[in-house]
Amino acid sequence: MSIETLTAAVRNIPDFPIKGIQFKDITTLFQSPSHLRELSDILYERYKKKGITKVVGIESRGFFMGPQLAVRLNAGFVPIRKPGKLPYKVIEEKYTKEYGEDTIQIHEDALTKEDVVLIHDDLLATGGTMVAAHKLVKKMEVKKIYINFLIELEALHGRSLFPDEVELDTILRFEI
Amino acid sequence: MSIETLTAAVRNIPDFPIKGIQFKDITTLFQSPSHLRELSDILYERYKKKGITKVVGIESRGFFMGPQLAVRLNAGFVPIRKPGKLPYKVIEEKYTKEYGEDTIQIHEDALTKEDVVLIHDDLLATGGTMVAAHKLVKKMEVKKIYINFLIELEALHGRSLFPDEVELDTILRFEI
Repeated sequence: MSIETLTAAVRNIPDFPIKGIQFKDITTLFQSPSHLRELSDILYERYKKKGITKVVGIESRGFFMGPQLAVRLNAGFVPIRKPGKLPYKVIEEKYTKEYGEDTIQIHEDALTKEDVVLIHDDLLATGGTMVAAHKLVKKMEVKKIYINFLIELEALHGRSLFPDEVELDTILRFEI
Repeated sequence: MSIETLTAAVRNIPDFPIKGIQFKDITTLFQSPSHLRELSDILYERYKKKGITKVVGIESRGFFMGPQLAVRLNAGFVPIRKPGKLPYKVIEEKYTKEYGEDTIQIHEDALTKEDVVLIHDDLLATGGTMVAAHKLVKKMEVKKIYINFLIELEALHGRSLFPDEVELDTILRFEI
């Protein structure tokens, strides 16, 4: 199965969640056994030789592919969540969104200085959440950080927010 | 690794999210590569001969282990989500919770009459959300439905809400 076939299987939803947005619906990829398997294989092939010890997934669509990749890489899985969801002691990062401020949290004992971390989310749009997630994981002084998204909306230039030395990769790219 | 070892690795958080609740924190299982792998293997062994074609996971902790099981079973993954999250046409089910009413939704084209479905969530407590999820999937007239939870709180008797003919299974059981 090619990247083009996977890309074509993403469902475009006009005006969701608000007018003017073309929402990329990835549930059509996940509900198809062959597409899900292919996505899983692509992710596994890209990261199997990186020595990843923890996959960090961002709530909540980063939970779809994060844990399955962790299982295949024999790594652990760590969630980054919105406030009030993680029950143990957390460290957090605040960031500015289009309409106000948001906060993300991670358990303070979820990562160690020995960890090689892949932070995964479904969509690179303007990039604000991942910039905050990257800062949050950096605070924990891990050995190395990789970043991955299933989908990149190239017109929004979210990629430009990350320094060149950050190894950021995306699988399915859309011009708009 | 034994079930006892996995059970002992669940972190108990007193008084979360409200006073009097002993919260079972499963992030300690997921962040350990060996515990995550063992949980994955147990789930795979239990369902590999059932002919499962779709794993349905309930937002949001059902997203942790649902997709990885789908990948291993060569099945598709389908999310059940709270209102406003799924972008395409949905069918929904309302249910009563301790403090008011709640609604869950599924994409109307996510399952077919040929599907053998495993509905997965992390925790069987009072059982209300899963009863609603079971009704929702039944509405779609699938061939067969299995139900699975990672954790069962036996003192809450959530299991008693399901008819005897429902094949409901849990992995880690706690008396309280």
